[in-house]
Amino acid sequence: MADSKQVAGFERAAILGIGLIGASFALALKEACLVDEVVGVARRQSTRNAAERLGAADRTLADPQEAVRGADLVYLATPVGTIVHHLHLIAGDLREGCLVTDAGSVKAAICRTAAEALPERVCFAGGHPMAGSERSGPEAARADLFAGNVYFVVPAQPGGDEAVARLVGLVKAIGGRPLLVDASEHDTILAATSHLPHAVAVATMLAVAELVPDERQRADFSAGGLRDTTRIASASPELWRNVFLANAQDLTPACRLTAELLRELADAAEQGDKARLLDLLARAQMAREALSRELSGGQEP
Amino acid sequence: MADSKQVAGFERAAILGIGLIGASFALALKEACLVDEVVGVARRQSTRNAAERLGAADRTLADPQEAVRGADLVYLATPVGTIVHHLHLIAGDLREGCLVTDAGSVKAAICRTAAEALPERVCFAGGHPMAGSERSGPEAARADLFAGNVYFVVPAQPGGDEAVARLVGLVKAIGGRPLLVDASEHDTILAATSHLPHAVAVATMLAVAELVPDERQRADFSAGGLRDTTRIASASPELWRNVFLANAQDLTPACRLTAELLRELADAAEQGDKARLLDLLARAQMAREALSRELSGGQEP
Repeated sequence: MADSKQVAGFERAAILGIGLIGASFALALKEACLVDEVVGVARRQSTRNAAERLGAADRTLADPQEAVRGADLVYLATPVGTIVHHLHLIAGDLREGCLVTDAGSVKAAICRTAAEALPERVCFAGGHPMAGSERSGPEAARADLFAGNVYFVVPAQPGGDEAVARLVGLVKAIGGRPLLVDASEHDTILAATSHLPHAVAVATMLAVAELVPDERQRADFSAGGLRDTTRIASASPELWRNVFLANAQDLTPACRLTAELLRELADAAEQGDKARLLDLLARAQMAREALSRELSGGQEP
Repeated sequence: MADSKQVAGFERAAILGIGLIGASFALALKEACLVDEVVGVARRQSTRNAAERLGAADRTLADPQEAVRGADLVYLATPVGTIVHHLHLIAGDLREGCLVTDAGSVKAAICRTAAEALPERVCFAGGHPMAGSERSGPEAARADLFAGNVYFVVPAQPGGDEAVARLVGLVKAIGGRPLLVDASEHDTILAATSHLPHAVAVATMLAVAELVPDERQRADFSAGGLRDTTRIASASPELWRNVFLANAQDLTPACRLTAELLRELADAAEQGDKARLLDLLARAQMAREALSRELSGGQEP
């Protein structure tokens, strides 16, 4: 899958946020022999210790500015709000020709900040790997986290062709499937395919908790449906709060449309409208089966 | 798990609806040596052929009345609406002392019908195995489908103590975990823990299909969240239409509450209300983790 021959290696990569994604990226770089030294950055000492112990970072620091000095690759993998903050913070410390990219799941604000804040002497392209886990932290990192998965590459305004080409090569070299997409289109589609499912899982879990207050009873009466639809509600509240805030513009209409469809199902059931109910259920089934077909080829049996 | 010693066997079981649940029940009875002969009933010839070929039925018929004559166990495992119809249909043909039960996922209407329609010479208790699959038909049947899973046992009004005791023994004998519950309580809780998640999966899939019309793009932009939250939307539209109609009274307020919570999340994101968002996400996470804890012990890692 990986073709590291086609991409130039790096002397030093600074990974700002050496958690699940950052540490996996570092491990993938190392496995593809694409980097001489990895400097990991995390606020917490325990995260830094874990990153070093697991071999994701050769050394670690708490200070982003210190970490990026001399680096020819800078990877921002903190929560979305922090990425924007870090871009401003490190702008003056970046080495000439350095490739700067990020792994944030909302792209418009990040690409706008990069275009405004970063100096012309560096290359920036936004990124978003479609890979993750309910688990977090460097302990959950894997060198093959990106292998075979879509990795969005998002040009920053204006221009940025060289940065895009370099990031595409890098993504291929670690086995990912680079997919070029405009920042605002990325955010609109992700609102539907990722942020909405999270909001739905949260709303459903809250509703079920309110309707069935007894936890033991909730479990006794639950089957695969409840487990599946609410599984992602167990992810980090802080991380998702940041995503919801950063993409509120696209997420809110998606939530309202889904709420409207839920009410339509409720109305049809209440009115005993068999034809309307069957139409809604059959259209959802067709769409879900189309999704399964598109995803088949490894990701879903 | 199974303790077939504690329950008397049956000479002839009539399984009305020899699909996934009916055929699994037949296979479980046979594996526990609890039945001499199984007569399977299905409308479609292809289903009857499959049930015989797979050994779930010794012989099959299209006519429910003919099938129940002489049977000392009658198991109704068709969709909910058809169970109600069948109870009326077979009432006059049931053998004295026969144990009649069903596997419908909505219980109030079925237990009411049984109490009204069935003669005093038979025993009826409602049942609902918490077991299933996206797949359907006898081809998907497994003798161990009920093993280790909750199996609700629901008294029909009035009385029915003997029927309940006999069904509890039978459920234990095939390895299930019998749980006694009142019909209306069953339906109220299931509306939250099973029917609501289905409605949510359907509404989410329809919203995503509307927001992202291109199927290939929908797949490229989807991660585990969309797959998990919409997985059950691929189940049979006819079956779920019947469930929604049979339990509309409990399902509609659950759908409306969830729609309200989704709008609350949208409002909080739109208004940039960090504290409100974090509170909603954190409460959902706590409830989901409590569910995982309660379910742990085999069903969820």
